[in-house]
Amino acid sequence: MSKEFEVPRSVEWEENHIKILNQQKLPAETVFEHLSTKEDVYDAIVTLKVRGAPAIGITAAFGLALSAQEIDTEEIDVFQQEVARLKEYLNSARPTAVNLTWALDRLLQRIKRAASVNAAKTDLVHEAIQIQIEDEETCRLIGQNALQLFKSGDRIMTICNAGSIATSRYGTALAPFYLAKKKNLDLHIYACETRPVLQGARLTTWELMQGGVDVTLITDNMAAHTMKEKQISAVIVGADRIARNGDTANKIGTLGLAILAKHFQIPFFVAAPLSTFDVSTLDGADIPIEERDPLEVKELNGIQIAPPDVQVFNPAFDVTPHHLISGIITEKGIITSNYTEEIDALFTESISL
Amino acid sequence: MSKEFEVPRSVEWEENHIKILNQQKLPAETVFEHLSTKEDVYDAIVTLKVRGAPAIGITAAFGLALSAQEIDTEEIDVFQQEVARLKEYLNSARPTAVNLTWALDRLLQRIKRAASVNAAKTDLVHEAIQIQIEDEETCRLIGQNALQLFKSGDRIMTICNAGSIATSRYGTALAPFYLAKKKNLDLHIYACETRPVLQGARLTTWELMQGGVDVTLITDNMAAHTMKEKQISAVIVGADRIARNGDTANKIGTLGLAILAKHFQIPFFVAAPLSTFDVSTLDGADIPIEERDPLEVKELNGIQIAPPDVQVFNPAFDVTPHHLISGIITEKGIITSNYTEEIDALFTESISL
Repeated sequence: MSKEFEVPRSVEWEENHIKILNQQKLPAETVFEHLSTKEDVYDAIVTLKVRGAPAIGITAAFGLALSAQEIDTEEIDVFQQEVARLKEYLNSARPTAVNLTWALDRLLQRIKRAASVNAAKTDLVHEAIQIQIEDEETCRLIGQNALQLFKSGDRIMTICNAGSIATSRYGTALAPFYLAKKKNLDLHIYACETRPVLQGARLTTWELMQGGVDVTLITDNMAAHTMKEKQISAVIVGADRIARNGDTANKIGTLGLAILAKHFQIPFFVAAPLSTFDVSTLDGADIPIEERDPLEVKELNGIQIAPPDVQVFNPAFDVTPHHLISGIITEKGIITSNYTEEIDALFTESISL
Repeated sequence: MSKEFEVPRSVEWEENHIKILNQQKLPAETVFEHLSTKEDVYDAIVTLKVRGAPAIGITAAFGLALSAQEIDTEEIDVFQQEVARLKEYLNSARPTAVNLTWALDRLLQRIKRAASVNAAKTDLVHEAIQIQIEDEETCRLIGQNALQLFKSGDRIMTICNAGSIATSRYGTALAPFYLAKKKNLDLHIYACETRPVLQGARLTTWELMQGGVDVTLITDNMAAHTMKEKQISAVIVGADRIARNGDTANKIGTLGLAILAKHFQIPFFVAAPLSTFDVSTLDGADIPIEERDPLEVKELNGIQIAPPDVQVFNPAFDVTPHHLISGIITEKGIITSNYTEEIDALFTESISL
């Protein structure tokens, strides 16, 4: 009996609400929820029901489009001001991922010259849907570009979940694995569990297994030993923000993997869409690093795993300097050196399109 | 109101049983248990109620001495054979820590020339108690030697629990922190939580807080970012087995910390008694690495944190090559280079004492 494999989706627009996969409940339960208000959307992002930079951007865009429908005015100026206020609110949900700001700005841009409030309301919905459609195509292209880097039999390590459920579909770092599966290319994935929120253990293993991809789970502190013992061929990770010089903010633990990969002479790749680049940030030192609630570290599912009064340091991201990155895989191709130059070229080209 | 701080103990001999601190229940509950049979002792070691190489050795020695009291013979040859059988049984509880074998062998050695079974029974108890007393003094000396390496204000990282409750008292890697506290030397400790069994989160933070030592908990994947952001001064870890060339088997994650420390040019120290050295093992490649139950990774306190059918790789230890170690701190002093030569010298000297 053959099993049906499917690449799962996490966010969908459904007329008067947004349907999301509650990623907090995975893998124990596959629960879909409806978000109907801006508070629902804000809360879903803060509590990590929706996570992953592109999925956050898409959800926030849907959230803005949805909440804007309720704005009760015929004055386009007033409407635009209200939408800008909505944007500020939703934008404050998480500080590190640049896609959130990027998606919301794109919606604001779209209605700048709207003829009427009604037209603007429709435009917001169309733009949000367009962002989602483009993201799926972007992810497919990232996967296609990344796939060139791997060959059958490769053992590839990843951290966190830069996967299908973190994006519109396919994911970024995980996209090549789904495309490899379609081509019957044999890749074996080692997923780091990714403490404290366990996105690797809960989400990456779950979605790769849904998609029929061969995956083994390890704890984060097993990465060095696994690289050596299992002869890992490459490391590939996603990104939350990439500075103009290629320095990359991603889930805490990424910097460690990059240093280990260098030690073992294993290529280390970042996979991310152009929307994750923030060319106004010159280097990694300027990227704000979110520190989250100590309870995430001290408790797991409400169970105490450390003394309740212990001091905790809980940074959610770290910054990997560009010199530790073998290549950044985008929908437009792979950047492998002279990051500032190549990134500048990429953005000049994008703007001129 | 000043708080009383105390360096906690985990194993005590109490006439017809062994009293242990159940380290599986920490930090939620401080429960002491009585072990009365060889099966109790074996089970306590396998299930990690007792853990830490020296504490395992002491508990196994007490277990052998205790079970030997029940051997019903007057024939010293028969008694010795039975004791050897007991040794084989207890020795099989865990494969990596060399102290287990070392302690049990020492008891066997002690009764080699025993005049009678009664005398041998008493000798076994005395030898086991002697091992515990010596271990406390050894740990104190390791702490004293290690303390020279640190200065007030230092921020020191550690993994797992090479602490007081892993030994007779004081611990190995944690010993200098208790001695620093006595001298009012201001050290700040960063404890890696140490997945999957969370010895760092559950035990190291707990015992350092009991002892009044300033400690901050991080997850294992925060090590690289913390080294950089908090300007970590040094890393110090314990050891489960040290080969003749200085290669060191210790809790999984240690190798990763050593590589990160090298990258950030932070000294990386191993603290261990001579009983942890296995000079018959020439290098790290010959040290067996225990792989444990996948459930340790997939579940936490019985709660599912990964898909139940996911593949798992769960090595309990890794091996840090000697060239990544800045120094090995023993009760006899600090070995800093030419490991094979210095270790040989140390053991020749020990034998000649």
